[in-house]
Amino acid sequence: MDSKEKYFSNISNRERAIFEGAISMGALFHQFVGTPFNKKTIPSLEKAMEESFTLQPCIDKVEVSIDLDRLDKAMTEFEYTSLSGDMIDVKIYSKVEDVLAVIRIKFIEELNYPLMFVEEIIE
Amino acid sequence: MDSKEKYFSNISNRERAIFEGAISMGALFHQFVGTPFNKKTIPSLEKAMEESFTLQPCIDKVEVSIDLDRLDKAMTEFEYTSLSGDMIDVKIYSKVEDVLAVIRIKFIEELNYPLMFVEEIIE
Amino acid sequence: MDSKEKYFSNISNRERAIFEGAISMGALFHQFVGTPFNKKTIPSLEKAMEESFTLQPCIDKVEVSIDLDRLDKAMTEFEYTSLSGDMIDVKIYSKVEDVLAVIRIKFIEELNYPLMFVEEIIE
Amino acid sequence: MDSKEKYFSNISNRERAIFEGAISMGALFHQFVGTPFNKKTIPSLEKAMEESFTLQPCIDKVEVSIDLDRLDKAMTEFEYTSLSGDMIDVKIYSKVEDVLAVIRIKFIEELNYPLMFVEEIIE
Repeated sequence: MDSKEKYFSNISNRERAIFEGAISMGALFHQFVGTPFNKKTIPSLEKAMEESFTLQPCIDKVEVSIDLDRLDKAMTEFEYTSLSGDMIDVKIYSKVEDVLAVIRIKFIEELNYPLMFVEEIIE
Repeated sequence: MDSKEKYFSNISNRERAIFEGAISMGALFHQFVGTPFNKKTIPSLEKAMEESFTLQPCIDKVEVSIDLDRLDKAMTEFEYTSLSGDMIDVKIYSKVEDVLAVIRIKFIEELNYPLMFVEEIIE
Repeated sequence: MDSKEKYFSNISNRERAIFEGAISMGALFHQFVGTPFNKKTIPSLEKAMEESFTLQPCIDKVEVSIDLDRLDKAMTEFEYTSLSGDMIDVKIYSKVEDVLAVIRIKFIEELNYPLMFVEEIIE
Repeated sequence: MDSKEKYFSNISNRERAIFEGAISMGALFHQFVGTPFNKKTIPSLEKAMEESFTLQPCIDKVEVSIDLDRLDKAMTEFEYTSLSGDMIDVKIYSKVEDVLAVIRIKFIEELNYPLMFVEEIIE
């Protein structure tokens, strides 16, 4: 019996796709918030964020984009700043058999909050 | 229109309970792994972990327990160690209307992995 | 030969007090930035920050204070926010034999930067 | 008056080189411990660690090396693991005018501890 049968038989493929994508989104946010960066180091930061969390169970792809306007506003005298949740727009694609879930984090002005939600589910 | 209608109308209450609990579990792990602690500071660490993640959307309760045997094995000459994923056993209770999901992380020896899974859903 | 003689014989007590305090300050910032909190959970968060980093080598005391005005400005629709570097005022007291160093982080408006510096050294 | 004169006039160049290198070492450890990785993603992880912390004040260069034996021992059924302090060997070069400090973290078996120390100071 594999771990899927043993630990995930109580949820559907659709539910597991949501579950695994959500774990990785919460994880990615709390792992990388606080990292020093500026415009020059965005490529290496984005790549590390994408590659590291693509390793987690059922994760097919991770796309990270950092908001340059918000970076500019947070810029310091030392020519870098710390990554914060309002600067990131991330899509995590999780796949369980024939279900693909797209989990997203995006800063929502009216909530003043970087909201994580299920953007799309393709079955 | 509130944020629930706007961003979560594409998933059921059961799916959202799974989603929100999973986010908080991934988040909690990556926020607190690495924290210095020893037997004396376990109460304050557990309390901070529980209180901080109970604040996230739909989270009803967080229960954290740290494995003392694994702490002992990781103990250093400086009489503390860093929190790692294999030491924690956490239950996160997420509630969306009449659905309660219990998300758990627990170290599974045969996987050598701190597995996150859905322990129970009460509808 | 203990670890002090083996690894720290190339620096003075004053230098080591600075060194150990600086490590713990950089560590504390990057460990806890991102943690969800609001006014109600400040006591448990401050306590965990203080107790966990007091465990590190040569650290005598850690005092954390969170800026309530900055918390208010960052407040979200979900009634909590994430801890960020501009919200914290921390003093770390490191002691090596008869030298006490006080390392501080404080947000400096003119630098738009949470500056870490040596506030005082008592010999 | 610049920030150096204002905030760092109470310590020598040598002391500030130690101070800034130590901050960045403590910070790097607690920022990146917990990150998912395996052999394939080591290059992107090392690059992000190096580039992000080279941005901090007075940091000239950061060299990260990950211990493959320790990675192997920690490998899980899911073909990745979480970065932990015992796996990393890092040198941070901090420079203040004509003083160069080399700060190092290295796992010391006899202490069962990833020790941070001043490896060398060139004046």
